[in-house]
Amino acid sequence: MAMTGVLRPGHAQVRVLNLEESVRFYRDVLGLVETGRDAQGRVYFKCWDERDHSSYVIREADSAGLDFFAFKVLDKATLEKLDADLQAYGLKTERIPAGEMLATGERVRFELPSGHLMELYAEKTAVGNGLGVVNPAPWGREREHGIGPVRLDHALLYGPNVAEVQKIFTEVLGFYLVERVLTPDGENNAAIWLSCSHKVHDIAFAEYPEKGKLHHCSFLMETWEQVLRAGDIMSMNKVAVDIGPTRHGVTRGCTIYAWDPSGNRFETFMGGYQPYPDNTEPLTWTFDNFGQGLDYPQRKLHETFLTVVT
Amino acid sequence: MAMTGVLRPGHAQVRVLNLEESVRFYRDVLGLVETGRDAQGRVYFKCWDERDHSSYVIREADSAGLDFFAFKVLDKATLEKLDADLQAYGLKTERIPAGEMLATGERVRFELPSGHLMELYAEKTAVGNGLGVVNPAPWGREREHGIGPVRLDHALLYGPNVAEVQKIFTEVLGFYLVERVLTPDGENNAAIWLSCSHKVHDIAFAEYPEKGKLHHCSFLMETWEQVLRAGDIMSMNKVAVDIGPTRHGVTRGCTIYAWDPSGNRFETFMGGYQPYPDNTEPLTWTFDNFGQGLDYPQRKLHETFLTVVT
Amino acid sequence: MAMTGVLRPGHAQVRVLNLEESVRFYRDVLGLVETGRDAQGRVYFKCWDERDHSSYVIREADSAGLDFFAFKVLDKATLEKLDADLQAYGLKTERIPAGEMLATGERVRFELPSGHLMELYAEKTAVGNGLGVVNPAPWGREREHGIGPVRLDHALLYGPNVAEVQKIFTEVLGFYLVERVLTPDGENNAAIWLSCSHKVHDIAFAEYPEKGKLHHCSFLMETWEQVLRAGDIMSMNKVAVDIGPTRHGVTRGCTIYAWDPSGNRFETFMGGYQPYPDNTEPLTWTFDNFGQGLDYPQRKLHETFLTVVT
Amino acid sequence: MAMTGVLRPGHAQVRVLNLEESVRFYRDVLGLVETGRDAQGRVYFKCWDERDHSSYVIREADSAGLDFFAFKVLDKATLEKLDADLQAYGLKTERIPAGEMLATGERVRFELPSGHLMELYAEKTAVGNGLGVVNPAPWGREREHGIGPVRLDHALLYGPNVAEVQKIFTEVLGFYLVERVLTPDGENNAAIWLSCSHKVHDIAFAEYPEKGKLHHCSFLMETWEQVLRAGDIMSMNKVAVDIGPTRHGVTRGCTIYAWDPSGNRFETFMGGYQPYPDNTEPLTWTFDNFGQGLDYPQRKLHETFLTVVT
Repeated sequence: MAMTGVLRPGHAQVRVLNLEESVRFYRDVLGLVETGRDAQGRVYFKCWDERDHSSYVIREADSAGLDFFAFKVLDKATLEKLDADLQAYGLKTERIPAGEMLATGERVRFELPSGHLMELYAEKTAVGNGLGVVNPAPWGREREHGIGPVRLDHALLYGPNVAEVQKIFTEVLGFYLVERVLTPDGENNAAIWLSCSHKVHDIAFAEYPEKGKLHHCSFLMETWEQVLRAGDIMSMNKVAVDIGPTRHGVTRGCTIYAWDPSGNRFETFMGGYQPYPDNTEPLTWTFDNFGQGLDYPQRKLHETFLTVVT
Repeated sequence: MAMTGVLRPGHAQVRVLNLEESVRFYRDVLGLVETGRDAQGRVYFKCWDERDHSSYVIREADSAGLDFFAFKVLDKATLEKLDADLQAYGLKTERIPAGEMLATGERVRFELPSGHLMELYAEKTAVGNGLGVVNPAPWGREREHGIGPVRLDHALLYGPNVAEVQKIFTEVLGFYLVERVLTPDGENNAAIWLSCSHKVHDIAFAEYPEKGKLHHCSFLMETWEQVLRAGDIMSMNKVAVDIGPTRHGVTRGCTIYAWDPSGNRFETFMGGYQPYPDNTEPLTWTFDNFGQGLDYPQRKLHETFLTVVT
Repeated sequence: MAMTGVLRPGHAQVRVLNLEESVRFYRDVLGLVETGRDAQGRVYFKCWDERDHSSYVIREADSAGLDFFAFKVLDKATLEKLDADLQAYGLKTERIPAGEMLATGERVRFELPSGHLMELYAEKTAVGNGLGVVNPAPWGREREHGIGPVRLDHALLYGPNVAEVQKIFTEVLGFYLVERVLTPDGENNAAIWLSCSHKVHDIAFAEYPEKGKLHHCSFLMETWEQVLRAGDIMSMNKVAVDIGPTRHGVTRGCTIYAWDPSGNRFETFMGGYQPYPDNTEPLTWTFDNFGQGLDYPQRKLHETFLTVVT
Repeated sequence: MAMTGVLRPGHAQVRVLNLEESVRFYRDVLGLVETGRDAQGRVYFKCWDERDHSSYVIREADSAGLDFFAFKVLDKATLEKLDADLQAYGLKTERIPAGEMLATGERVRFELPSGHLMELYAEKTAVGNGLGVVNPAPWGREREHGIGPVRLDHALLYGPNVAEVQKIFTEVLGFYLVERVLTPDGENNAAIWLSCSHKVHDIAFAEYPEKGKLHHCSFLMETWEQVLRAGDIMSMNKVAVDIGPTRHGVTRGCTIYAWDPSGNRFETFMGGYQPYPDNTEPLTWTFDNFGQGLDYPQRKLHETFLTVVT
């Protein structure tokens, strides 16, 4: 197999302050497809072009933030092997039984030194993208309901011990470092962008004193014009926009950052280039140039990017 | 590693009828970057955003067509293993020594039952994309020299025994089937699109009585607007256009097919979706619907697509 | 006034073979807004971003084609003056009373030497684009219902005596010649593009032996991406596409030509440049280069363009 | 004539602090075409797709700002008539002889109550866009030199007495009001967008205590993707960006505001809709909603927009 091990971001579970308001936001404004609710009261969503049952799950809570972020792995054998590898590396893992989440097989959960709960799983029921598999149209009505991203693309997480996190992702989970921002003294990485594919990132981390913080979950848009449309829809719905539309220097991707009704930041993202793991030389941003890394046209290190998390 | 085995299309070697005319075409019209010439008279090119030394090589010959198409694999151990796997499968492999092509390590060559020579290699000198690795700009002047694709994306090859070719790619080389066109009787695959990544295709084959034929090499464009610009530049330079600009139903990608001065078809391509190997259900096009698979707006099975190859 | 006289294309009345099938096509596939039906059985449509009541009217008949094409003029005084000017030029004019068409004031009708009925009018009830006039959103839901063009942009009409038609438009109606295609002998204009604004054309004519023929009515799209989306929607609805998506050399505009269910060609068009009437030097296409004028990337003079009209 | 009177913005003359630095900026970064220098040391530029000799003229001075802004009128008779009309209205006009500016005929100059010098002229030598007038390509190399706007589109000027300025433009010069922002009390217009065409604005004014201030000259881009490219080029050249890329609610246009090396703001602008003078109901923005009028996605009234002028 040429794509093995960890395949891609699978699901994120995010806490919201008001469930029904959030359902309306994620379904009608962001334009995710609601695919189920469970006995715990969680609501499950997928992006229209995703095949698996769900990629974004919300639950009502007293504070916003991320419960856990999961990756789908190739198969059950891979799941077993990665569990063993994580344990061999010295991490404690936990098994969450199949069915604890709707349409989802057994999960292996572990905590990163950054305080984030990660999960791996091999099975999630395929529900398709609504276009069928024989002579399919390129898209359907759901693409134009709300912002309509095609995929959960990645997440950026804030917490301590980023160097240790990097080791786990690169040495155990098979990711590679695509880009990084140096600390002001140039000695360490203030932020890292990691890929398990040829995407510019499947997950990213930034050094932050508090554990387990969510900076944003990112949803993939197809074009720069769709990012503009996303911004229009945000404004029509009085969504609080943080940054953008603009281009990141880091990843070259184009973006709008905004906040859901509970204050969880999300991103509508497109573009970037195609890195491959044979490139062992990550792109490096010096801290004094990170302004252009964040907002390339404006070359501006927006304060909120550094400080507002859930 | 999450990306292992075969990583991506690495290089294609194509025969042209007039070397200098072809150099002008590939350098100034298609906008590849010339990176070297060797003692055999071959001219080496890369796309501007590729990091390795070269991806497209031309040599002068009496007839147009493809000499060989190569994939880069993760590392030398992978190369050894795949060589052994190919032999174990019953294919004869040949070693081409490092340095036979400029800046390129040892290659493992084998012939497919379709009559195409394939190569695997693990090493090619990185020359970068000219933007540096510290605080890089998102693009530079080379992007706008000629059509300016970012990558060699894939090739479509015509020949016999596509079912056997599919077995080799999926059972030995770790590819998976993304889409296929059925034969008119629905019993077999007339054409197959194979991926070793989350691209909609890294290589494709169509059943054809004659061995070893090139349908097209495909170059990746970033946007639909860049495909329009490609069409403008083709016309300004009197390039013979075959089909497009249009959208394929197959892969959802957008395209122009055109011919180089020697009659080798090439494609300027963008878009498509992101498949993953956990999807074991390829998209299927019935033969009577392949018109929309080829040219989605026009729903038209252009005769040249089926018959003109080099 | 800086914009005086004839302002823009106002309405086209087109014959269809089956009214309800055509209503479904124009409303749900092309995405026009149905704004009324009258006692004669005519159905009125507007594009979503048009402010006036209607711009495209269909009626059931035994043969497809154009009944008449109308321009809105600045005001009633202009209407009177242009009527007098047309008569002074030697054309017979007819008054159609206000209210004969829904929401439309008195019309001045005259026949061109090409056999087409033209109309001028000064009044049509404004119904708005649904966004209001105070703090309006940039677009609303109607933009994404069907193809969703923003305006009736122009028409291309086929008939004899194009030179005489040109004189009427330029000497009486205040249009100017923007582009033209020469006849094969270079002595006359085979086709002319005329503007009363800074659009590349408000109306166009091509020499054709038969009188009063409709080549196409054109609907304005905002972007090249929207043209691609138009092509997708055409294919999803099995609309017969003629040419495109592609760029015209003439006008530089981007296009898809397709046919409505009755065989009336229409265009989804975008782009072009901004001509002004102080430019007295029209762009000229020699007949042997008209292939690139029609289809710039393909440089191809599609046979249907020259021969299929209603 | 359907387009009569004032046709379009013709030229702006802007003061810069360092001539050669500014020439490099306007020629190589903004990508204007330098078309001449005169005995006074002024440097003349045009956008690549403009036909007339020049549209943007810079001269070295101790302070940045606008010397004058001019409109091209249809012909000499129009120039005479508008001069007489302006005088009849009570404005003093001055004749600047032909040849005082390179390639430019006689100009009629007058001062607005806002303190801005306006000019009208009927003649400027046509130099073409370099593509010829027979079988022209849709664009050429100059389009991709620097940012490469197609036209000088409009200017926004800050000064007192906007209500009086509006009267002059609408009652004497034939413009019409397209959009406006109300003052906080809703009694007056804080800003007005005026058109002499079917552009969303040919000139705009905002109430400001100081006379004769330049907010920005605006250059027309063809697409949203070209606006992104403009932002990239700004950053590559360390141009100070003010706002954007974003969409304006006012005009629906897309924009980046940035500053030239002397602090003169300029805009790279695209889009908007097509207003016509038969629409007597301008779009109105209440002051509390002007944030979305300026920056639609962010709904934010950037402080610099209100306060930084030259």
